[in-house]
Amino acid sequence: MQLKLTEEKVFKDPVHNYVHVKDPIIWQLINTPEFQRLRRIRQLGTSYLTFHGAEHSRFSHSLGVYEITRKIISQFERSGYTDWPTEEKLVALCAALLHDVGHGPFSHSIEEAFDMNHEEWTCKIIMGDTEIGAILRTVAPDFPEKIASVIEKTYDKPIVVNLVSSPLDADRMDYLLRDAYYTGVNYGTIDLDRILRMLRPYHGRVVVKDSGMHAVEDYLMARYQMYWQVYFHPVTRSSEIILRQIFRRAKELVQSEYSFGFMLPSLLSLIKGNITVQEYLRIDESIIQTAFNQWTEEKDELLRELCTRFLDRKLYKYVEVDLMSADEITEMTNAFREAGLNPEYDLEIDFPSDLPYDVFRPDDEDSQKQIIIIDKQERLRDISEVSEIVRSISGIQRGKYHLYFPQEKVRTVLGQLPPQIAKIFS
Amino acid sequence: MQLKLTEEKVFKDPVHNYVHVKDPIIWQLINTPEFQRLRRIRQLGTSYLTFHGAEHSRFSHSLGVYEITRKIISQFERSGYTDWPTEEKLVALCAALLHDVGHGPFSHSIEEAFDMNHEEWTCKIIMGDTEIGAILRTVAPDFPEKIASVIEKTYDKPIVVNLVSSPLDADRMDYLLRDAYYTGVNYGTIDLDRILRMLRPYHGRVVVKDSGMHAVEDYLMARYQMYWQVYFHPVTRSSEIILRQIFRRAKELVQSEYSFGFMLPSLLSLIKGNITVQEYLRIDESIIQTAFNQWTEEKDELLRELCTRFLDRKLYKYVEVDLMSADEITEMTNAFREAGLNPEYDLEIDFPSDLPYDVFRPDDEDSQKQIIIIDKQERLRDISEVSEIVRSISGIQRGKYHLYFPQEKVRTVLGQLPPQIAKIFS
Amino acid sequence: MQLKLTEEKVFKDPVHNYVHVKDPIIWQLINTPEFQRLRRIRQLGTSYLTFHGAEHSRFSHSLGVYEITRKIISQFERSGYTDWPTEEKLVALCAALLHDVGHGPFSHSIEEAFDMNHEEWTCKIIMGDTEIGAILRTVAPDFPEKIASVIEKTYDKPIVVNLVSSPLDADRMDYLLRDAYYTGVNYGTIDLDRILRMLRPYHGRVVVKDSGMHAVEDYLMARYQMYWQVYFHPVTRSSEIILRQIFRRAKELVQSEYSFGFMLPSLLSLIKGNITVQEYLRIDESIIQTAFNQWTEEKDELLRELCTRFLDRKLYKYVEVDLMSADEITEMTNAFREAGLNPEYDLEIDFPSDLPYDVFRPDDEDSQKQIIIIDKQERLRDISEVSEIVRSISGIQRGKYHLYFPQEKVRTVLGQLPPQIAKIFS
Amino acid sequence: MQLKLTEEKVFKDPVHNYVHVKDPIIWQLINTPEFQRLRRIRQLGTSYLTFHGAEHSRFSHSLGVYEITRKIISQFERSGYTDWPTEEKLVALCAALLHDVGHGPFSHSIEEAFDMNHEEWTCKIIMGDTEIGAILRTVAPDFPEKIASVIEKTYDKPIVVNLVSSPLDADRMDYLLRDAYYTGVNYGTIDLDRILRMLRPYHGRVVVKDSGMHAVEDYLMARYQMYWQVYFHPVTRSSEIILRQIFRRAKELVQSEYSFGFMLPSLLSLIKGNITVQEYLRIDESIIQTAFNQWTEEKDELLRELCTRFLDRKLYKYVEVDLMSADEITEMTNAFREAGLNPEYDLEIDFPSDLPYDVFRPDDEDSQKQIIIIDKQERLRDISEVSEIVRSISGIQRGKYHLYFPQEKVRTVLGQLPPQIAKIFS
Repeated sequence: MQLKLTEEKVFKDPVHNYVHVKDPIIWQLINTPEFQRLRRIRQLGTSYLTFHGAEHSRFSHSLGVYEITRKIISQFERSGYTDWPTEEKLVALCAALLHDVGHGPFSHSIEEAFDMNHEEWTCKIIMGDTEIGAILRTVAPDFPEKIASVIEKTYDKPIVVNLVSSPLDADRMDYLLRDAYYTGVNYGTIDLDRILRMLRPYHGRVVVKDSGMHAVEDYLMARYQMYWQVYFHPVTRSSEIILRQIFRRAKELVQSEYSFGFMLPSLLSLIKGNITVQEYLRIDESIIQTAFNQWTEEKDELLRELCTRFLDRKLYKYVEVDLMSADEITEMTNAFREAGLNPEYDLEIDFPSDLPYDVFRPDDEDSQKQIIIIDKQERLRDISEVSEIVRSISGIQRGKYHLYFPQEKVRTVLGQLPPQIAKIFS
Repeated sequence: MQLKLTEEKVFKDPVHNYVHVKDPIIWQLINTPEFQRLRRIRQLGTSYLTFHGAEHSRFSHSLGVYEITRKIISQFERSGYTDWPTEEKLVALCAALLHDVGHGPFSHSIEEAFDMNHEEWTCKIIMGDTEIGAILRTVAPDFPEKIASVIEKTYDKPIVVNLVSSPLDADRMDYLLRDAYYTGVNYGTIDLDRILRMLRPYHGRVVVKDSGMHAVEDYLMARYQMYWQVYFHPVTRSSEIILRQIFRRAKELVQSEYSFGFMLPSLLSLIKGNITVQEYLRIDESIIQTAFNQWTEEKDELLRELCTRFLDRKLYKYVEVDLMSADEITEMTNAFREAGLNPEYDLEIDFPSDLPYDVFRPDDEDSQKQIIIIDKQERLRDISEVSEIVRSISGIQRGKYHLYFPQEKVRTVLGQLPPQIAKIFS
Repeated sequence: MQLKLTEEKVFKDPVHNYVHVKDPIIWQLINTPEFQRLRRIRQLGTSYLTFHGAEHSRFSHSLGVYEITRKIISQFERSGYTDWPTEEKLVALCAALLHDVGHGPFSHSIEEAFDMNHEEWTCKIIMGDTEIGAILRTVAPDFPEKIASVIEKTYDKPIVVNLVSSPLDADRMDYLLRDAYYTGVNYGTIDLDRILRMLRPYHGRVVVKDSGMHAVEDYLMARYQMYWQVYFHPVTRSSEIILRQIFRRAKELVQSEYSFGFMLPSLLSLIKGNITVQEYLRIDESIIQTAFNQWTEEKDELLRELCTRFLDRKLYKYVEVDLMSADEITEMTNAFREAGLNPEYDLEIDFPSDLPYDVFRPDDEDSQKQIIIIDKQERLRDISEVSEIVRSISGIQRGKYHLYFPQEKVRTVLGQLPPQIAKIFS
Repeated sequence: MQLKLTEEKVFKDPVHNYVHVKDPIIWQLINTPEFQRLRRIRQLGTSYLTFHGAEHSRFSHSLGVYEITRKIISQFERSGYTDWPTEEKLVALCAALLHDVGHGPFSHSIEEAFDMNHEEWTCKIIMGDTEIGAILRTVAPDFPEKIASVIEKTYDKPIVVNLVSSPLDADRMDYLLRDAYYTGVNYGTIDLDRILRMLRPYHGRVVVKDSGMHAVEDYLMARYQMYWQVYFHPVTRSSEIILRQIFRRAKELVQSEYSFGFMLPSLLSLIKGNITVQEYLRIDESIIQTAFNQWTEEKDELLRELCTRFLDRKLYKYVEVDLMSADEITEMTNAFREAGLNPEYDLEIDFPSDLPYDVFRPDDEDSQKQIIIIDKQERLRDISEVSEIVRSISGIQRGKYHLYFPQEKVRTVLGQLPPQIAKIFS
């Protein structure tokens, strides 16, 4: 049975004004428990501890990605571009809507701590015994696999993959605009309408008309600024470090058969690494924060302290340092240990490029990672070939090494550290 | 010891651009666990289920109220108005910052369910054995009591009360702007700068210069629209009803000594009504949502179903009805019961005016509830005397009666209801 | 020959972001001298002397009205509403684009001074021997007449008239948004997207779906505020009075065969009332301002002074007064004359409702002046029947009487005026 | 006599919300005929022919520059920075307000055509027998000279010069924001508040705190984009070329003693190069446009045609070309002449860097042209030393050569041009 939405539904959205839903499949997908769960997972993880406005959820972002994809396709259709396979519309819209459905809370930290991957989870949820899976199967038995293959970038229509996942995709455009809006940082403002008007389907991929080059430059500069102003902000890094330490400590305690005063079955499975899809779908930010909240009364002092730090926002302090050699790191670690500190937890050396975020690199061999400009003669060139400014910024390595540490603790033993090391932390 | 902030601190805020903090007391208060807890409580309760963007917290709002108060006072000082008691600045700033610190999660629903009052909790936290209390006592031993009396509107400088709590106070101005920004509904946009410029301290209260009358009219119209568009939205009401039913059911189960599969001590104290300040400060939205999450697997079917509804956003449907007499209500209730439904949970009759929100009523006898306009001859008049449009809108009773009910359940027994009642629900 | 625009053209517009042009007829019309002339006529006449940002032209506004009309029709077509006569699209777009093409500079003042009517001029230009006329005739010989009849509201498809000229038409929606944007007064902000989504063609007219009622209320309140804050601002009225006095004086001088030091033929024809279409199309704000500039050196002292006042913004001062009887006016006029002043020029009594602007009056007998709400049962009702707030504001008479006068001049003779009159002007 | 403004005056401004005036000298300066004249001169010259929204005047911009300067100084005063000479406040405010008062209409074109300089005129007006001069002399006899020396960058307090004229001055910040607002191009959006907060007076100049580096980077990128998107837009260049050709032709005609059908004395003096201050103050855009309007009926065909082109926006077409050698230019010129065209007017070769606008060049020897970053150790470094991105973009030469020509005319003689040249223009 094919339901019909008698009238278009809309969601009021502060970024796109309205998100428009006409297809009943999309409407049903939004109303599944798996998709509603995204309301309980913040888009920017711990960034709200740096930018208090950044409290928006992956639910909002997912609707936004869907809406931008819908706008692009609708522009392709209106313009009658023959290179766009019109029958792929629903595939693209579903993939756009669902691309983040496998995210857990504080995704990057949790993935690192427990060696997981949200893309895999997304595919499991799409193809599994879930409400989402059931709805997708009403379209066609192999429809879930199609959507999953778009997510995994193996779908045999690369233009669909391109739309959902490329350096100028609906995902990135939504998050730049949305994160700028919610943090209040106006660097992320891009001319979405102009970019959308300049996109063209062309021989199996989405390219940009050359007169849109400036808008793309502006988009790349906005992204560059957002990375350094927001995503890599050292205060956010500090909170992520504490988060990972909590997870690490909890894992150590589970492995040492410590008896927790508070533990939820789904959380335990997560830590043990044998979590099922149904359990995974239970995990949201509330559960994590509740565990931390209860753990502020655990017997284990380290866990207790870390959880208190996180909830009360008593973050680690940081200092900027030059690149350190392996020997220097060992020396510092030993000095910490000798001073009675625990370098495993009391000292973290961090360089932003370790992060899973991607800065645009035009020389990437992977063609899915290029932004292709098309001119009137239908010549295709990567934007870095035609834009001097993109070439200029794309080589810039801006990250800085930071040391993170619990200031109060380190301060009490400053006298026991070698002077040249003590100087760094004072 | 009096700390000094060597340089002004700022918080990036999407509504006010920056929130400026110069006084070290304010800085310390923001960094207490009690204030940081407000990050885990949404400003608009369940409204995020209607307006997905409305995910902002009471932390953001509290900073905003502080900032507007700071701007008003700073304008009073710059203009050299002699009616402003300059020594009251810190009292006003602290009261503005802390006025919501006693809020619990989903405040209005929880207060109704457990007969609590956030204002009382605010005062308990301010005067209690908390970090906030300790910081306030560094100013003066009786400083916490001063702040609490501003909250309770009994402070002996009524102008300070007026600033923090009146129909044109910093609280309302911030929430209109902020809720409009986060929901994306632009009706709440007000000309904050103009209103602030028009405020004057005058004989112990804050009045508005007559040339600011239009800006105040616009503010009252914005408020009027926000109430009907956002705060009283029937979908939000529906989610609040489910929330209250969960709390009610949990209370019934506690009272009947039901053995919960999942229960937290602080939550149990809350339900039992004997919660301490320390326990209360544990309660945040995470704990509530985690309880609901776990309760979807409780033995009690009703609780299980209600929690599932809330988390998965399977809300009650609603229909608009005319005013019903007591007899009609009884008749409908009985019909439900006879059809095998449980009218205690399957039928809720709702009229928005029951809500704790206040619409401006100019004829209120309480002078703290008036907006006073001052003209060049220093005549004072309530705005409804000078503005025809305010007079026009202030009498409007717009609320409508709604019936809320679980559609799937009611639908199965439609045939067993008397036809005139069945018609309403079909 | 039917030209085709190979690719859609866009105009960057600060209010609508982009104005989209696909039809070659529209493109050609925009590029006519008659339409380009609108660049040299400000949308808000002398309002720039009150709100310095209000320097936008009728060209911008005309593009905006076209764009809103295009959006409405495109939404009608997308939704497949059968009550919209699709073949009327070009008629509606041309009428929307050209509806203001007959405006002269400082339109309201000039029309009053020389007893003209911009609508008549619009029709003359559309049907005359002009580039616009020639382009329209390429569509069909009677096409110019069609467009003109839409402007004159006599077109036999009333729904087209309704779109271009009604209380909720594209004209009003654009000017509210645009005037708010350029003045910086944010009262004019309306939720354009929502209103557009709620419009429906229905039995020969455009109606509003009932769920859009709040957006329409908001629109009417915005309009109400813009009238009193911007359009009727007393400083703007003061500059309009001086403008009309200049025109009046120039006419008197022409009639008395005064020999002007500077006069342009087209201007002379305008003053004499025998201007041709070709001459009329010469008249723009530059010519008026240049004449005033040169007339600051005329022999006639009154003309000289008035022009200096206008250019240097030495406007008349104003005081608010109660309603005056005919006797009181005569008394004041005589007193002025006896004190050696010239009441014809030194005293103007003004009441805003004399102005040609329209405030929404729901009880207007003319059905083209209603805003019709349609509900699910297809009942049609005027908005004032369903909205209490519209009913409330629609009866409000807010205008106040003002006296305008040259303060420096009147001040010198205050002693010679009767005390009760002198008091008013001191 | 020292007037006092009893209450602060404000101007509603769409960019800064309000412009605040407290000092009576500023108030009086704004009300002079010389300053009011700026209302009749567009800020962006002919840009309104490319971006129809860009109709804002130098009056608005001048108020904006004043307002930003006022904000900077007020922040310096609030912070109690000792390096700011508080007695210089009025000097800085007057210089900021008046810095553009010498601009004529279509300034860059007119200066180039008649070899003039608006800065000189600004100083003449400030020090001359004008109302501005008279008001300034009420402060002190040498006050006009002080203001003029700030404009000329010779004032002995370099920090004042720095504030009004440097790569990060109030002038540039206002025009970026204002031009972005009025054109609707959002590339110009900068975080003004943050930049202002980061400015510090330091040993006679204004420097930027290092934590503001990102905001300055963003400002420089915004400027870069605005230059290429707006200021150097080829359509605007095309209209400027026609403008200069009109002025050139008028000059040729004056020199050849041609008898004009329409000429104003002030305009004649301007063309002859012997204009007085009083005559110069007569010149505004109205006079220029009126002359063009009347000249569309001149006997001289070339002047007639150029003026028609300008008013009706029939601009020259352009093609992009590679750098041409002197020989190639001569060859093309000759070919045009042989084909019966007039290369003096029918062919213009243009490279944007000829323009009087300045792109930031960090290696400029002039220290007034640097943006200095100060770190916690009070080290001063030019931003290009600390910002890789600034270093990257500052070397970019992006201009392209364009040929401008009257397409209709050139098209008729294409067959008579050598094929390789004809190809370029076809």
